[in-house]
Amino acid sequence: MKNKLGKQTFQFPLKPRIIGSCSIVGEKEGKGPMAKWFDIILEDDTFGEKTWEKSESKMLKQALLLALQRSGLEKDQIDSMLTGDLINQLMPSSFMARDLSIPFLGIYGACSTMTESMILGSMMIDGLYASNILIGASSHYCTAERQFRMPLEHGNQRPPSAQWTSTAAGGMVLSANDKGDAAVTQGQDVKEIYITHATPGKIIDAGIKDVNQMGAAMAPAAVDTIVRHLMDTQRAPEFYDLILTGDLGLIGKQIAMDLLNGAGMDVANIYDDCGAMMYFESQDTHGGGSGCGCSASIFSGYVYKEMRSGKIKNALLVSTGALLSTISPQQGESIPGIAHAVAVTTEGGN
Amino acid sequence: MKNKLGKQTFQFPLKPRIIGSCSIVGEKEGKGPMAKWFDIILEDDTFGEKTWEKSESKMLKQALLLALQRSGLEKDQIDSMLTGDLINQLMPSSFMARDLSIPFLGIYGACSTMTESMILGSMMIDGLYASNILIGASSHYCTAERQFRMPLEHGNQRPPSAQWTSTAAGGMVLSANDKGDAAVTQGQDVKEIYITHATPGKIIDAGIKDVNQMGAAMAPAAVDTIVRHLMDTQRAPEFYDLILTGDLGLIGKQIAMDLLNGAGMDVANIYDDCGAMMYFESQDTHGGGSGCGCSASIFSGYVYKEMRSGKIKNALLVSTGALLSTISPQQGESIPGIAHAVAVTTEGGN
Repeated sequence: MKNKLGKQTFQFPLKPRIIGSCSIVGEKEGKGPMAKWFDIILEDDTFGEKTWEKSESKMLKQALLLALQRSGLEKDQIDSMLTGDLINQLMPSSFMARDLSIPFLGIYGACSTMTESMILGSMMIDGLYASNILIGASSHYCTAERQFRMPLEHGNQRPPSAQWTSTAAGGMVLSANDKGDAAVTQGQDVKEIYITHATPGKIIDAGIKDVNQMGAAMAPAAVDTIVRHLMDTQRAPEFYDLILTGDLGLIGKQIAMDLLNGAGMDVANIYDDCGAMMYFESQDTHGGGSGCGCSASIFSGYVYKEMRSGKIKNALLVSTGALLSTISPQQGESIPGIAHAVAVTTEGGN
Repeated sequence: MKNKLGKQTFQFPLKPRIIGSCSIVGEKEGKGPMAKWFDIILEDDTFGEKTWEKSESKMLKQALLLALQRSGLEKDQIDSMLTGDLINQLMPSSFMARDLSIPFLGIYGACSTMTESMILGSMMIDGLYASNILIGASSHYCTAERQFRMPLEHGNQRPPSAQWTSTAAGGMVLSANDKGDAAVTQGQDVKEIYITHATPGKIIDAGIKDVNQMGAAMAPAAVDTIVRHLMDTQRAPEFYDLILTGDLGLIGKQIAMDLLNGAGMDVANIYDDCGAMMYFESQDTHGGGSGCGCSASIFSGYVYKEMRSGKIKNALLVSTGALLSTISPQQGESIPGIAHAVAVTTEGGN
């Protein structure tokens, strides 16, 4: 178990690289504060498809194919792909993967899916089972609304604590080798990005039954994973330039801050949440963003580019998932939360 | 990439052991030809719960906890758990995992989930990220019928090619160490069971749109993965005492046999399918069994026990998944098939 650290953390001595990345978002996300970081902003959220599920599937596929192109690799150099989304039976992932003819492993961690794919993908490379892995996650406002709440045509009234499922996808190529974007943008001083540690999370259920309080349901899981990660790696929070939770949104972010403060950690200057970053207040999303694509697109857009340019050196991405189902709230169940953390650095390459 | 073999196969030089196992099935499965191999047969498929989803969740939890007990390990010795099922957002898995407080990674491969969990779990142990991993998969006739077809109360007429989702769950403990059942059943000459190779599959879509022809939809994927596995490992089919597909059922099994024959492989004496094995013809399931729990329970019941006793020495489990969603057929989509193979042996321990 030389690659296990403390109680719950994996370390990757071979430091898998992120060598290609692509983020795609919808119209609304493209008008938010993060717009300049995204690679593609859709002009039309249907993306030319006849159903929302097919739109989401196409968005995820585009993100993966562009990440692949930017990595400088060909499709047949990819050993396996790992993706997931929120939709029943992972329809966007499965139907996208059908066209790519790459060994495929579907994963489900609700909105924690991006870090789940990073953990398993890193393990495949670090364990010498693969040289190059394609990973990604997606969500779409229109697929999620219909599935979890009401069809859009219903004009559902949203309570102030509700979050807005981001129409967004992120794709990345993980590799055993330095290459990709860095090689492509020749002559520029770009940094290599290494994945060094991962902390898969336990399910924490705070007993919250209100499906419009997702942030509150997930915040305790996020804090549990962050604290566990720091204990296992014996790092102080300030080791990181940025600790970024997935989609706690405005309310959940505040709860997470309070809980971290309560645990004696002052993270005010280094902590943020993708859901809280995604929209302007004037965009009227109420609780902020959510969905697998929220942290997937902000990491593979903003964080990735800021790391490539050297502005961020050490980041901890903690995507968060609310593991309710379409029917569990109707059966009186509370919302189980989960969060998986992945540590990424531009320092200390082999 | 020293642990990649050929185009698509992983090898596990440290040979993770299966040290504990448990299979649970419902009433109907408990009256079928495999009944004597299952550890627990429910007298009542509700398992004392108020909803079918909770029944399935309890069944999976019991399978995992009993597998754990039989391994001789305690819960806090388990590093991570990997499970999945067919139900939207993996409700049975997530709600079961909530109670166990073990780092949890949800996976979705439709009925290929059991081998997906074996692949990822083996990698965690072989890559030295974990000592002990808990894996499993479940399905329940009543949750699946309601979700994919009609509520049972509707009394839906089933066409002759339809398969019967097995009410079944299988759980196993994978470990870096020889231990478990073998140690428990002291004095008996039991064999250790090692996982040596895994071949994750590509999605193959044969263009079948009839949701009552799942076996036909999955058979090409199963054959693709078997042929790829044999090529990558340079093994002849007869290397295996048993090649076992997941749930092609009676029709799909025949198609797979024909395709394998067409590829020049005579597997008549060593090939079988869990879906074809699960029920007597008189039980009127039409096409045979299906569901994640079908191959999960037959492997962790029958195959596991026959390997422990030395009757089966080398087996290849190829769980098969139909990656359709609850709405993809309504959107005119065909059924993507997938199959992941795992090679298991009682010979050549370290």
